[in-house]
Amino acid sequence: MNFEIKYKDARARIGTFSTKHGKITTPTLMPVIHPKKQTIKVKDYGAKMVITNSYIINKDEELKQKALTEGVHELIDFPGVIATDSGSFQLSVYGDIDITNKEVIQFQEAIGTDIGTSLDIPTPPYVRREQAENELNTTIARAHEAIETREHMLLNSVVQGSTFTDLRTMCAEDIGSMNFDIFPIGAVVPLMEQYKYADLVDVVMSSMKGLPESKPRHLMGAGHPMVFALAVAMGCDLFDSAAYILYANNNRLMMPTGTLRLENLIEMPCSCEVCTKYTPEDLLEMEHDQRAKLLAIHNLHISFAEIRQIKQAIKDGTLMNLVEERCASHPFLLDGLRRLKEYNEDMELLNPSSKESAFFYTGPESLNRPEIYHHQKRLNNLNFEDNDKLIILPHSRKPYGKHIIRESLHNKKDEKLNKTVFFSKDYNPGSDWSNADIIIADVPFGIIPLELDEFYPLAQNESPSIHDMNAIKFVQDSLKKFSKNYEEILIHKGIIDRFYKEDETDFLGVSSDIILPTGKIDDFKRLNMVADYQFGTGSGKAIFGDDPEKLEIEKSKKTKKIRSIKEDDEIVVNMRANDGFLILSDIGAKRLHKHSPSPKNRVIINGEVAEFARKGKSVFSKFVLDADSDIRKNDEILIVDQDDTLLSYGKSLLSSKEMLEFNIGSAVKTRKPKNEL
Amino acid sequence: MNFEIKYKDARARIGTFSTKHGKITTPTLMPVIHPKKQTIKVKDYGAKMVITNSYIINKDEELKQKALTEGVHELIDFPGVIATDSGSFQLSVYGDIDITNKEVIQFQEAIGTDIGTSLDIPTPPYVRREQAENELNTTIARAHEAIETREHMLLNSVVQGSTFTDLRTMCAEDIGSMNFDIFPIGAVVPLMEQYKYADLVDVVMSSMKGLPESKPRHLMGAGHPMVFALAVAMGCDLFDSAAYILYANNNRLMMPTGTLRLENLIEMPCSCEVCTKYTPEDLLEMEHDQRAKLLAIHNLHISFAEIRQIKQAIKDGTLMNLVEERCASHPFLLDGLRRLKEYNEDMELLNPSSKESAFFYTGPESLNRPEIYHHQKRLNNLNFEDNDKLIILPHSRKPYGKHIIRESLHNKKDEKLNKTVFFSKDYNPGSDWSNADIIIADVPFGIIPLELDEFYPLAQNESPSIHDMNAIKFVQDSLKKFSKNYEEILIHKGIIDRFYKEDETDFLGVSSDIILPTGKIDDFKRLNMVADYQFGTGSGKAIFGDDPEKLEIEKSKKTKKIRSIKEDDEIVVNMRANDGFLILSDIGAKRLHKHSPSPKNRVIINGEVAEFARKGKSVFSKFVLDADSDIRKNDEILIVDQDDTLLSYGKSLLSSKEMLEFNIGSAVKTRKPKNEL
Repeated sequence: MNFEIKYKDARARIGTFSTKHGKITTPTLMPVIHPKKQTIKVKDYGAKMVITNSYIINKDEELKQKALTEGVHELIDFPGVIATDSGSFQLSVYGDIDITNKEVIQFQEAIGTDIGTSLDIPTPPYVRREQAENELNTTIARAHEAIETREHMLLNSVVQGSTFTDLRTMCAEDIGSMNFDIFPIGAVVPLMEQYKYADLVDVVMSSMKGLPESKPRHLMGAGHPMVFALAVAMGCDLFDSAAYILYANNNRLMMPTGTLRLENLIEMPCSCEVCTKYTPEDLLEMEHDQRAKLLAIHNLHISFAEIRQIKQAIKDGTLMNLVEERCASHPFLLDGLRRLKEYNEDMELLNPSSKESAFFYTGPESLNRPEIYHHQKRLNNLNFEDNDKLIILPHSRKPYGKHIIRESLHNKKDEKLNKTVFFSKDYNPGSDWSNADIIIADVPFGIIPLELDEFYPLAQNESPSIHDMNAIKFVQDSLKKFSKNYEEILIHKGIIDRFYKEDETDFLGVSSDIILPTGKIDDFKRLNMVADYQFGTGSGKAIFGDDPEKLEIEKSKKTKKIRSIKEDDEIVVNMRANDGFLILSDIGAKRLHKHSPSPKNRVIINGEVAEFARKGKSVFSKFVLDADSDIRKNDEILIVDQDDTLLSYGKSLLSSKEMLEFNIGSAVKTRKPKNEL
Repeated sequence: MNFEIKYKDARARIGTFSTKHGKITTPTLMPVIHPKKQTIKVKDYGAKMVITNSYIINKDEELKQKALTEGVHELIDFPGVIATDSGSFQLSVYGDIDITNKEVIQFQEAIGTDIGTSLDIPTPPYVRREQAENELNTTIARAHEAIETREHMLLNSVVQGSTFTDLRTMCAEDIGSMNFDIFPIGAVVPLMEQYKYADLVDVVMSSMKGLPESKPRHLMGAGHPMVFALAVAMGCDLFDSAAYILYANNNRLMMPTGTLRLENLIEMPCSCEVCTKYTPEDLLEMEHDQRAKLLAIHNLHISFAEIRQIKQAIKDGTLMNLVEERCASHPFLLDGLRRLKEYNEDMELLNPSSKESAFFYTGPESLNRPEIYHHQKRLNNLNFEDNDKLIILPHSRKPYGKHIIRESLHNKKDEKLNKTVFFSKDYNPGSDWSNADIIIADVPFGIIPLELDEFYPLAQNESPSIHDMNAIKFVQDSLKKFSKNYEEILIHKGIIDRFYKEDETDFLGVSSDIILPTGKIDDFKRLNMVADYQFGTGSGKAIFGDDPEKLEIEKSKKTKKIRSIKEDDEIVVNMRANDGFLILSDIGAKRLHKHSPSPKNRVIINGEVAEFARKGKSVFSKFVLDADSDIRKNDEILIVDQDDTLLSYGKSLLSSKEMLEFNIGSAVKTRKPKNEL
């Protein structure tokens, strides 16, 4: 399987793979084609890949002979990619079927299927553990047999294990280590039919835990667009839909937010050719077949439009926004999204560090986005040893540093706001506060050290001015945790007004005599903190040294933002305007390399391709031997060989887990060093 | 203006009105047509009504002559309804224009406009109060002049007042009392451009406060589909869009969730003819004019599809769900929705009591829906004098009464759940608990007396099993408030587990010796409580008397639900299966009439049409003299004349405010009494 990632967001990816019948871009939807009954040419509506049932073909002598002589593409008259199912579904419905696993594989191969499937056992949700285990053993045994039987075609192997998350993970690890090409996640239809989306999330996420990133995954039987966005965010790449036609036969219209019954409609719901040409009455007056065909066309249009919207959201880095919108359409979908909170660590693992779009807070679920978790983790990189004083200020416009003084401290409209300050019990009126650390408390990131105010997404986010209680609690918890690093604390009244009730501030003193120092940002302190936040504790000191006088800091004339830092006319690092990331140069890279112990900040590659990296050529995943587990797409990283010789540096294009698992595609966009390092 | 309401939800309505050029169904969108530059035949994409600018026509000699001789419909080649703007926009941009208010009105009349507009002053948001007041005086003076000048055409009068909510209300009341036909809400474009949706909500809701319900309202300059659902929910009926073409000229695609730039697209976002035929690259390669035309067609399709979805949601009673979905697309739209909480009372005023669809909780904002407020109000109807003991149980499947015993009290899986009970400090181990009131604590309705478990929407709702903190706090507050009516309280452990943290239950005792009585519902108690909840305190006793033995209660064999209550073989009331409402009969109506003082539960009609009501004919709004201010659409009401003679009874089709303000259409669907009452 030559699966390659083009864009990433959350656990979602836009990927491509090739087959004998063309190249597929995921995520995509495979309409299910019944080998005998086809009313719609699905390729006219966006289908590049379909799924049909080899068991049904095999059972029908006429279909079987035609498929064997002319091939399955001719049989169902579809020139694109064809996957075939094996009969597992029939097995689950009728109990037993009269074909062996080996025969099914051989038959699929014989009819020219692009992607075949072994005869797994689809264990339903909520069975007894013993049943799940026994059936899983059969499924895995048949997977082994399938691999041995397969000759040329690509091969699915289905993750089973019922609703036992450990069995799902175990199964995924087992079959994930074998040479399959696509991994369907099976027997989830009952969960979707019963709206058990929280359990669906458990099943999918525990399957993902065991599956390699380098192969596409197919959420089997998921054909309703309302679940696509959530599933894609968890890492699903393929969907199949018989629903478009089954729903249509039953007068039901699919929407990305649910299902509509034609009889209840006074208006057609979308902008497709059917919805703009006909009224509900027009359709109800038609003969069944004509109506069903038109509704199926609507269902296909709306499903493919949803797939396109999802792809666009992945490219933009706004997929979780789309997921939150979609899950706002049904309480049980929302339940699924809320369950996803239990998988914060797994969601963050593959999420890019920097994105094209701002972070939009659109409700309590936004607090579970990977960016929030990532920020919490990176805050631990900061060095708290040098300072025991903290000032907490309310938000201003962003970036905070530019506006904080004018808007928050010298608020003309509310004089009281300037004068009232809360302080911690350890506050000493005689202390010198001029070098205190200053943080902003705000939704959704909780606390933002003033020096990090330009770093993505701490500057690139928006939230409503009216807070929900989860957001308030999150800010309170963040402040509580962060404050532990300090002995004396001053708190601006704006924070208390916004985030605390009266009886929640008993532990604080209050004074209107204290004058808060102005929150000016020291460039040297900013550079140090950004470096620590981005590369790990102590990185700032390693890269910038102890003496601010040695550095020449160049700023943008227009924005006043730092652009580059030089030492003796040589660039140490640049600071990227759009996301505030430090971009390494030769000196910066060497200092970071010297400071941080392997494999921290590193992608370790095979020495055989060392020269390519030195020359600035991209690093391909297949040459990556190891990588810092903290690396995410768009991080700045060091490129070293197995002896830890620094070869070059660059921008990661994948998370470290992906670099290690992929064998094709680029892992790092290398920056060519000026001199040998 | 012959505006008539067909369907209602929240403050939204599907209405119709007729003009010389056809009948319009609202909500609808009026594409703005430039009298000189038309690239798209908007009627091909769903436009039944357009808006064009009489000032531009008047300024251009050629256009003017053609309009005066052939009429504006011929001039812009649109056979449907045409509204014209007056030049106020030009006034706001260029400062002064060379035409008087009177001239503008006369000119619009002369060119055959269906709906003309006076020359108001569009005062921008955030100006000084003095400016807003002065300009408002001019606007209102010109409104008077417009009314005097107008001959045949329908006439707009624009609500102004900048961002001063009291001025908006005052202006709305002033012009609302004059004989205008449509009320635009003006000068809100800057608020939308700056994403000040919370302020937009203030402006719209304060305007609504003063406007009559019986005329359509037009949110002027709102042409982006992302704001349609929220605006319609607040009571806006008409939108105008120049944006569809302006955005298209600038490579921007509208979506109901925001705006997309063509250059950033890798996929087309919707299911319309343009998005399914072309890729972003196809469009970018085209000449500007061809591309702009296609993008404008997309923008029209997506805008009209959104209008259709909104109409469907109003019909289904799910509009607030759609609003919540849409507002989950941008933090500042969410801010607008959150601000709407300040208008809970106004939102509930026009919201139907019973709807076709279940209540779906989809986030903290769902707690601000009118149904929640309505329930809080009606809980006050209950009689707490007879009982000082309360048992609080956790939720089960709905209706609670049917499942509560099996699922909550006798939970086999969790023995502890059955045994641990919390109790209030006044708890007396010797008390008799067999007749205690029993309530369920649940999201989203807070507390639900067990006897009301079939009443809409207390049975007809769904919420996620994982709660947000606003929902938890809401349940806590509801319990606290409701508990005050009782002296001794027992609380099932499930409530504590779900809604309280450990340190929040210090005021309670805990015991594992108490055995909760089984929660069986007494039919007589149920009838009494439902009647009180539906019709007001004491109604149950008035309708059903003191002696349960006198009543024959008939139940459905299948569902075991109460169907009808008879006394001496005569029906007293029926209980409707789908929403649990008591439906009056002759006896029930007479007893309720005797019990509740006028105008409680009453629609008071002109005695001239008394005979029609007696015969079961619908009551028209124009004959309604007064009505109980608590009446909402779908309430069961008494029909009386001005002497309070009971004529009949029936189902209200409007809220009482609407009955009083409308002069056409039905107000009550009368049930024909069996005998004279």
